[in-house]
Order: sequence, then C-alpha cells, then structure tokens
Amino acid sequence: MSSLPEKQTAVRWYPPAYDIRVEEAPVLDITDPDDAIVKVTLAGLCGSDLHVYRGSGLTKDHTIGHEFLGVVVKLGSNFGKQDQTRPALYATLKVGDKVVAPFTVNCGECHVCRLGYTGRCPNGLLFGSPALEGGQAQFIRVPKAGGTLYNLSDPSSFSLSLSSFTSSSPSGAGASSSLAEAISSISDSSLLLLSDILPTGVFAALQILNHPKVQPMLTGKPWPNALSRMTSHMPLPYTLAHPNPNDPQSQQGGGGKTLLREEDRVLNLAVVGLGPVGICAIVSLLDMLSKLGEDSSGEIGSGVKYRIVAIDPNSSRREKVKEIYDILPASCKSKGDFLVMDIDQAKQDVSESTSRIGCTGVLEIVGSPQALRLSYELVRPFGVVTSVGVHGAKEVPFKGVELYNKNVSFDFGRCPARAMFPMAVEVLVKYQNVFGPIGESTSLIDKIVPFKEAKQIYEDFDKGRVGKVLFDPWM
Amino acid sequence: MSSLPEKQTAVRWYPPAYDIRVEEAPVLDITDPDDAIVKVTLAGLCGSDLHVYRGSGLTKDHTIGHEFLGVVVKLGSNFGKQDQTRPALYATLKVGDKVVAPFTVNCGECHVCRLGYTGRCPNGLLFGSPALEGGQAQFIRVPKAGGTLYNLSDPSSFSLSLSSFTSSSPSGAGASSSLAEAISSISDSSLLLLSDILPTGVFAALQILNHPKVQPMLTGKPWPNALSRMTSHMPLPYTLAHPNPNDPQSQQGGGGKTLLREEDRVLNLAVVGLGPVGICAIVSLLDMLSKLGEDSSGEIGSGVKYRIVAIDPNSSRREKVKEIYDILPASCKSKGDFLVMDIDQAKQDVSESTSRIGCTGVLEIVGSPQALRLSYELVRPFGVVTSVGVHGAKEVPFKGVELYNKNVSFDFGRCPARAMFPMAVEVLVKYQNVFGPIGESTSLIDKIVPFKEAKQIYEDFDKGRVGKVLFDPWM
Repeated sequence: MSSLPEKQTAVRWYPPAYDIRVEEAPVLDITDPDDAIVKVTLAGLCGSDLHVYRGSGLTKDHTIGHEFLGVVVKLGSNFGKQDQTRPALYATLKVGDKVVAPFTVNCGECHVCRLGYTGRCPNGLLFGSPALEGGQAQFIRVPKAGGTLYNLSDPSSFSLSLSSFTSSSPSGAGASSSLAEAISSISDSSLLLLSDILPTGVFAALQILNHPKVQPMLTGKPWPNALSRMTSHMPLPYTLAHPNPNDPQSQQGGGGKTLLREEDRVLNLAVVGLGPVGICAIVSLLDMLSKLGEDSSGEIGSGVKYRIVAIDPNSSRREKVKEIYDILPASCKSKGDFLVMDIDQAKQDVSESTSRIGCTGVLEIVGSPQALRLSYELVRPFGVVTSVGVHGAKEVPFKGVELYNKNVSFDFGRCPARAMFPMAVEVLVKYQNVFGPIGESTSLIDKIVPFKEAKQIYEDFDKGRVGKVLFDPWM
Repeated sequence: MSSLPEKQTAVRWYPPAYDIRVEEAPVLDITDPDDAIVKVTLAGLCGSDLHVYRGSGLTKDHTIGHEFLGVVVKLGSNFGKQDQTRPALYATLKVGDKVVAPFTVNCGECHVCRLGYTGRCPNGLLFGSPALEGGQAQFIRVPKAGGTLYNLSDPSSFSLSLSSFTSSSPSGAGASSSLAEAISSISDSSLLLLSDILPTGVFAALQILNHPKVQPMLTGKPWPNALSRMTSHMPLPYTLAHPNPNDPQSQQGGGGKTLLREEDRVLNLAVVGLGPVGICAIVSLLDMLSKLGEDSSGEIGSGVKYRIVAIDPNSSRREKVKEIYDILPASCKSKGDFLVMDIDQAKQDVSESTSRIGCTGVLEIVGSPQALRLSYELVRPFGVVTSVGVHGAKEVPFKGVELYNKNVSFDFGRCPARAMFPMAVEVLVKYQNVFGPIGESTSLIDKIVPFKEAKQIYEDFDKGRVGKVLFDPWM
C-alpha cells in the first residue's frame, strides 16, 4: 500500500484542558527520507496522557497518545539501502512489517543514542505533543524510523540474548527462532506494553539494583569496597578489617576479612504507585532479584535477601498487585518477602521492620510532590530514590538540609525506552501470562474500546474510574 | 597521664550568631567505658564551622570545631581487652598514641557502620555541636573511641593496601612499614586533613566515577549494557548491535558488536567550589582517573579520556588550584585536560566543548542553592551531580519537570569519613607534596595561630579574607 488515504479518524486534544475531540484529520505523508508511515492497530491511553489532558500550559491542539502498535504502510527513500553505517532497520524494514515504537523518537545514530540514552536524543520528539502528532489515530508518521521502530516481524534482526527466556522455554530451539515463536504467540495488547510502561518499569528496577549505595547488600562487602570501580586495590574499612572467630554470624572474605552479616544484607525496597508501570517495575524487580548470585564472579547477590513493600492508596490497585504476585513463578519469590500496603501501613511497617532505619531503595512511579515526599520519608540514610514519574512545574518538596542529613541519592527522569527494549522484551516473553490476556483480573489492560468512546474514557481515566484502556482505531 | 587538669582553654560559640569567645572551660573526663580523652595538638577551622558561626538556629553555647589531631591521654575501662568481637582499637590503643578522628563519632559496630555508612551511625554525633563538645580546645572527649579514632602511631594495625603508594615508593619495603615510615614523615598539619576535608574530597570523586550513568564512558559499552549488575546476559541495544566495518571510528566488541566511538568516551567533569575540599576532590579525581585501565578485566577505562573544568568565582582560589595542578606528577595528567575558570567562562566553555550537551558529572562542593543550581545548569541529560556541600534550610532550587527533563541523578550528603580513611590515607601519602608544607603557595593551609586570635580569625574567614587556618591550643 503505497498510496495513503487523505483523511483519517483521530483523537485530538484542544487547549486549555479537558477537551478531547474525536474528529477527521489529515493522514500525514512522508516528509523526510527517514520517515515511515504506520497504520495503527492499537493505541494505548497512558497515565502521562493526563498531564496533557488536564492542561500543562500547552496551547496547540494535536493528536494525543504516545503508545501505539501497527503495520508499516509506507517507507521513506532512505529505506532498502544496505548502508552499514546506519541502524540496520534502514536496510531491513519492509512495508507490511509489524512494528512497535518507544514513546519518543530517537535517531539511534548520534552521540547520545550511541551512549544508550535514547530517551534524550537531541533529534528526539515525544509522540502526541505539539511537535509531533500522536498515536491515537488510524495512521501515524514516525520520524527517524530506522532508529526508532522495533520490527516485531523480524526478531532475528534483533540480537536478543534469551538466557532467561530459553531456560524457561520448553523447546530447546535457538534464541531467535524461539523469540520469533514467542513473540508471535503474544497478543497485540501485551506487545503494546513495550512502547512505554514495560521498559519504564524495567528501567526503574535496573537503576535501583545498580546504584552504588545498594552494592554493600548485593556484594556482602561494606561501602566503599563494594563499589565495582576504582576500589579493587582497597582494603576493608578498619572497623571491619579483622577476622572475627567469635562472631558466628560474620562472613569471612578474602584475606580473612570480616564481611557483612546476613542481617545486614536485606534489601528493603519500596514501590510507590501500583498503576500499570508500578506492576511492570515489580515484575522486573522480582525477575532481577531472582537472578542474584548468577553473575560470573559468583559474588554478586549470593546471600542477599529482600523485602519489598508495594504501596498505593487505591485498594483495587493493591488487590490486583496481590493477584499478579500470586500467579508469578516460584523462582521469583524464593529470596524474600513481598507485601502490599496503603501509605500509613507502609510507613509503620518500614519503620518497624528496619528498626526505624528505612528502605535501601524506593521506586517512585507516580510523579507528584506527594509521592516524592513519601519516598524521602521511607528511604534510609545512604539510600536511593529512583523516580520515573513525570514531574510537573512545582518545586521538589525537599529542603537542602534534609537531603544532606539523609545522604539521599536520586535518579530522576524518562526511560530511554529504545535502549531498554532488549530487557523489556525478555521480561514480556518470560512473564507473558502476567501481561495478558485481557479480561482476566490480573491483566494490566482493562479493555479495548473504539475511538468514539474516547471523550468519556479520558474523563473516567482522569477520575480513576477505569484502569489502562487501549483504543482500536478500526473498531 | 591518668589525671587530667580541671580547666582548659577552649574556643566557644554563643548563640545566636557571630559570637566566638576564647575562655576557660572544664576538661571533660571519661563518662563511658568506650571513651578516650585526647590532648589536642592541632585543631582545624573548616568552612562548615561557618554554618554554626553564622547562626543556624542553635540555641546552646558549645566548644566549636570538628577537625582535630592529638595524643591519647586517658582511656575508658573497655580498652586493653582482647575482645575480637569489637573494633581492634579497643585492644590495641594506648595512652600516648597519636590519633586523628573523623568529624563525626561512629561506633564501628552497628548495622550502619558494618555497611560502611559510618557518617550516619545511629550512635554518631558531630564534634563541635550542642550534643558533643568540639575540637578547638586543649582536650576533647571522644565517645566510641575504638570505632571512631585512627591510630597514627600504629598503622600496621590498619590493613591498608598500598598498591599505588608502594609503586611510587623508593624503598621496596613492605606495605605497613612503608606506611609507618610514610606517615611519620607527614607533618601534623597535613595529617589533620584526614579528619574531614581529604576524605570528603575522595568521597566526591569516588561517587562520580562509580555512578551507573558514567559507566558508558568508562566501559565503552552503551547504557544499560555498561552496568555491572543484572545485565551480564544482555545484548547491546538494537541501534548499536551491528558491526560497522564502514565506520573506522567504531570499536568492535565481543560478538562483533559495535561499541562506542572514542569521541563518545570523553568524561566531561566539573568541580564547583575550589576551597580546600574542592582541591582534595580534584587531586583524588585525577588520581583515580590515572588508574583507569588498571582494573582486572582490563576493560574499565581503557580508551577513556577526560576534560575537567574547575570553577570558582574567587580568583585567588583559582590561582592556587593552577599552582597545585602544576606540581602534580605527570601520571595524573596524561589522559585528559584540566582547566580552571570562573562561573561565566565555565558555562560558555562547557556548552561549546560539549556541543551544548553538558557535563557527564558535576562535583558540588560549596553547599548553597546557587552552587546546586549552577551544577544543574552544567550537567548533561543522564548526568550526575554529586553534592558533598552542607546544605541549609532553603528548599532545593529545582522544579520537578527540570529534573525529569534532564534525567538528572544526584548524590547528596555527608562523607562517611571513617570508612573513607583507607583511600584518604593513600592519597595523602601519595601526594604529600601537595598537602603541605605550610608557607608554600600550594599549601592547603594558610597558617597556624593561637586560640587568642580565634575571634578575629573567624571574622576574617567568614569574610573570605583568609583561607584554611589551624589552631595550636598550646601556642
């Protein structure tokens, strides 16, 4: 299909706020040789769409939505060329291929993309913003498509390692064929999760477990010796540098040095916000924790235990998280405890379970001053708060002395979704029973609706009367 | 000396502010079996003493100062016992030993201390606060002395690895004897730097170079593959996962994967604040950077280059930093550039030298909203700000959306000085020509004065008319 229709139906937002209109809009054609035009088969409604919906100062009407899955219907003139200096998709992507995109465009070729920080590509744009029409439409134009899109029809072009997947795969087939097989068996509504919420959940979990302040628990060595850089020549700190035969709990390390006690190695983690992204973060976190002790050195994670407190004021969200935890494989649950609580229960529980010290790490997945403040109150001195929530124009709710006095570390910001796809696809394939199908109480997606319900759905979603909803533009 | 004098001379602060009195005060005796009484031979005046001096709401007068060096004159009844379940100093410390303490007490025995987070020991107290009399006195009581003190008379009890030191040591003697020899040759005014500013500088440098967001430059692998945890099974992101024979600049990794280009691996670092702690941070940073490529895997740092911009509005501080850089060994300068600038020059230089992307990491060593704001403006998306400055009651100067939009990571807070002693001693021994002697223009310490000058010195220090000053309580 090389000739596009002139008109389509799209969900458009109008300033200043709360004004959603389903109307006829022009189908955008190729405007740059790197563009692709995608026929949208499913489009997601995301919590961060509410920032636009509620009005955040935007003054230009536009097609909303940054989560979409579709089929390539037209490609720019830079496709079909065997140029190995460019992302492989420019050579391999074909009309008819099934594709998913991250929520932002990234060229995949600049300094920032080479570093893997694709979410902040200088050529990047957010789908569903005044600068780039969104995915809640029948057709969408994807700039820098060879860097941005992921080809679900040709997973062998994606060099995904499936160490975890294949180990849990019945067939002993090779990785790429197993992957093709696996992806083809996943519903479109689950594949759509790759566009934003699943990579964002993986990102949050990955940041917490890789932060230097968490390494003493993971390695069994005190800080700073636990660090992986610059300290290979370091002795243990004086107070810990003596073998301790009288202390049965002390673990003996190399050179007869006393390492941490078992009780010191409990990862106390909190997840603030149990919406769809929070659920993706929890599954990713449990998956990563289940791999502890598997690293080549055999050192990382052996002996670590965890205690995760999942927090949300909304009881239906808490119930869903409990149901999802129940259907997770036992391999995810062997090394620790997982508890679901409201805010007040969590404050009291964390205080009591940690002797008032606090959480090693907090995943903030809401994006509000209240959630940031709660995260600060829950985290321990020398703890970490990873915030993947989208924050607004308000000042952050911290005094300088509070951050100094607690030695808090923070990681803020947007998931580099395209760079996270390898891990996100692995989690999706491994836990597909959790990420679908629609209808079951554990599904992350409540329902699929036609565009004509969009105005009402946005209102219901804004009021918390409905969970994650997808649009079928052709329904 | 088991009987102490009843009276001593001390520098005392009186509320609400700017009220320093040199007066007779009682000599505190042992009040707990873990206490030690130290006769102070040198006491330092530190920038953070100005937070007290200027009045930060404290209402109780007390002896000020948290940097001191001295000799043990009396020990509590828990010393001299061979109890291997306790820090070794309870067995080995003797009256007459020369000791230095970190600026806070730490027990060295609790969960927090075992983790190495000694700066936040729940039993910890800050010397020179309403809760604990300070070091600008002739005698000081040191609680939890077996966990807190470092015995300079018996370095063999300190299991310091001297990989770097011995390699630069003329004698091929064993580590501990070399260390004893080395420490005995270091002036007291240089050893005093261990109490606060040198470990704090090492801490700032260590945090920046160990942060996950900096690992792509250090490892040559894109994020998240560059991470040292959880990703050993990961492929490179799609956009980078193709060998690139047509790109001579691309480095080939395992499995024929294209790694980062040389130009991607420049660590752009900024140091905000060139006071004594800033100088310690710079020397530590240059020392750590000189070791890149030396790790066992041979992977970390090989191929990395750096560009450090050192920033201060005070021209005399900038001149001193230039002089200190000039006397550093060539081994510290081989892998990058080091520039010294004022604030406006730095903003323009960082923008131009990084194509407006910004710094990989910023070390904030001032402790003011202005310095934090400058650090934010200088840092790149997915960059890191390590803040070791002591921050006050003001809100931090960031809107939530600013932190989200730049994907900023922060590490705030106090140095766990006791846990940093191993690295700090190594830096002191290796670079002793930089950290003394007094009188040379490169010295971190301007002069040593008697207590009777304290009132004037505090005023001059507050007004920036004098640099780092030490007090000799017996002068």
